[in-house]
Amino acid sequence: MQNFTFYNPTRILFGKGKIAGIADEIPAGSRVLMTYGGGSIRTNGVYDQVMAALAGFTVFEFGGIEANPRFETLMRAVERCREDSIDFLLAVGGGSVIDGTKFIAAARYHEGDAWALLSEQAPIKRALPLASVLTLPATGSEMNAGGVITREATHEKLPFRSPLLYPRFSVLDPSTTFTLPLRQVANGVVDAFTHTVEQYLTYPVNAPLQDRFAEGLLQTLIEEGPKALAQLDDYDARANVMWCATLALNGLIGAGVPQDWTTHMIGHELTALHGLDHAQTLAIVLPGTLRRRRVAKRDKLVQYGRRVWGIDATDEEVVIDQAIERTRHFFESMNVKTRLSDYGIGREAIPPLLEGLERHGMIRLGGHADVTPDISREILELCA
Amino acid sequence: MQNFTFYNPTRILFGKGKIAGIADEIPAGSRVLMTYGGGSIRTNGVYDQVMAALAGFTVFEFGGIEANPRFETLMRAVERCREDSIDFLLAVGGGSVIDGTKFIAAARYHEGDAWALLSEQAPIKRALPLASVLTLPATGSEMNAGGVITREATHEKLPFRSPLLYPRFSVLDPSTTFTLPLRQVANGVVDAFTHTVEQYLTYPVNAPLQDRFAEGLLQTLIEEGPKALAQLDDYDARANVMWCATLALNGLIGAGVPQDWTTHMIGHELTALHGLDHAQTLAIVLPGTLRRRRVAKRDKLVQYGRRVWGIDATDEEVVIDQAIERTRHFFESMNVKTRLSDYGIGREAIPPLLEGLERHGMIRLGGHADVTPDISREILELCA
Repeated sequence: MQNFTFYNPTRILFGKGKIAGIADEIPAGSRVLMTYGGGSIRTNGVYDQVMAALAGFTVFEFGGIEANPRFETLMRAVERCREDSIDFLLAVGGGSVIDGTKFIAAARYHEGDAWALLSEQAPIKRALPLASVLTLPATGSEMNAGGVITREATHEKLPFRSPLLYPRFSVLDPSTTFTLPLRQVANGVVDAFTHTVEQYLTYPVNAPLQDRFAEGLLQTLIEEGPKALAQLDDYDARANVMWCATLALNGLIGAGVPQDWTTHMIGHELTALHGLDHAQTLAIVLPGTLRRRRVAKRDKLVQYGRRVWGIDATDEEVVIDQAIERTRHFFESMNVKTRLSDYGIGREAIPPLLEGLERHGMIRLGGHADVTPDISREILELCA
Repeated sequence: MQNFTFYNPTRILFGKGKIAGIADEIPAGSRVLMTYGGGSIRTNGVYDQVMAALAGFTVFEFGGIEANPRFETLMRAVERCREDSIDFLLAVGGGSVIDGTKFIAAARYHEGDAWALLSEQAPIKRALPLASVLTLPATGSEMNAGGVITREATHEKLPFRSPLLYPRFSVLDPSTTFTLPLRQVANGVVDAFTHTVEQYLTYPVNAPLQDRFAEGLLQTLIEEGPKALAQLDDYDARANVMWCATLALNGLIGAGVPQDWTTHMIGHELTALHGLDHAQTLAIVLPGTLRRRRVAKRDKLVQYGRRVWGIDATDEEVVIDQAIERTRHFFESMNVKTRLSDYGIGREAIPPLLEGLERHGMIRLGGHADVTPDISREILELCA
């Protein structure tokens, strides 16, 4: 096992009816800015539940945070925080709203151009306290300290993180997900699945507990994901997917093991240049990454095939082939297409994607920093 | 899945060499009381490592905290905290030292007889900040907010907990365990195993992720426990056991599922009256509990037998029989005996044990509070 530090102070309030309890978690007298996205929370009852729970506070609102939240939008919220002397941020929505709210929290006290928090990873010295009411299980942002922000003007999508950005609390009420579009439910399962894979499918370091936790997440997503798609109000399926998505990226399964975020980094370029859903990019890139990297990831690919998919072929090459195809089939069965061509993107799109990776310093990806630009190109060619 | 709240702010510093980093985690200028047990840390190098790391602080010492830490001993440390104006506690040792230090932290600010924190569960309103350097993986105390204290004078052993008692940080350096007596290594594995079972072997509530995490812990302990016994300096085996023991009782696997602490509660009486090691009491009582409760726990016992032990018999009764026997055999293979008679305790000891349970309010144990005193008696008879 590798050395590690694990720290995660976010309080999780899980279950039906838990929104009502948030007033106890926010400092009395706070001026709260409630942030949200396109307004679906106004029609599904979540807005009303949150407002009722916040009755004792001075509440402001900032709606309209997009999927792949934009720097330009968020800087308007930062201005609002300054003007209205906000001292607590409550994100109500999915990963985009929570990521965006983390950026607002950090940018609020940043002097100078806040883009430096992303482009230069300028240190975050102070942040507004924030919390979340999660309505879309997917990114894990509700229980981690990072986020990803897109700059519309330059088609860039960049990550940031700081221990100051852990949500103080996050409410996970599975019943808030009953009204989600099925595309978002499916995307969330693919996202959580890929988060798990990128912390698991690397190389062995004798960390059997982390392996089994990751395998447990994958097996549960494989079982529960289709149930969550099949019946809108299956509370337990939604609850199980929701808890999986949170634990897939809260630091636990990645503690003490190597990680390989190749698929995510390439995927971010696809979203930045072509506007694909984040999960769509993962469903495209992950099978290509696993095919191209089957030698480097051999031991873990065999373990993945045998333990997660129950493939009992004796020939390890067959196990690997089947494991990758089962992964692709799982994504397709969740109605998320897995090839660039499915989204009308041809091979001519590959060079600009590689240029984007290079511009963002993503020239050595992988658990051993051994994914060169040439290998990234070959991965993308396998995604065609 | 059941509703739950999960919160655990303890920072884990895991791996070889991590003790050196503790100075960064303690507030500058702190007056630190270092607490420890029988002095083994003076001979295995841990004392020197801790003292070197604390060079910038004013450090006091309180040694001699016993296994099953005693109220009488701990109250002397509370006096020391007041006299020396201690403002940070650093427990260096195993679960007994950490549990005892949590009690010191709580009792420091308690007005009146601190025994009320145990006997009446008097509210803990304030506590000294504490942290730990773990040298014996077993109880999980390094990453939770509870403890168990024994009163010598009255042979009582009682639990307490408060969110104020999470360690600020805990160092888990597996190499500190190389010099442990094998009996303590084995006890730790049995303790962690039983903690996991008591949050897993109840009844199904459609929480497949929690089930798989628990099964992953049990399988890893079954694999790694014997390795840790067989070779004293097998770093990875010690690391895997250590991380299992922490995650077995940090709130994670118990979130959203029923729990049944029957075995622990009966075991505490055995320690209080007969002085057995905590893990010895668990090794005795768990098989008896599972046998007596095989109907109430039927579904999970079958799942446990099939998934954890790989028992493929079609007859579920056979699966359950074998699962219980494999559990007993595992404890015996770790050199922890599993019957009262192995420790020279006869059936005449059972009535006083039941009286102890009753005196401590433990008259309705189990996940459904359905373990009556009669059932506790039958469990103990099966342990003879």
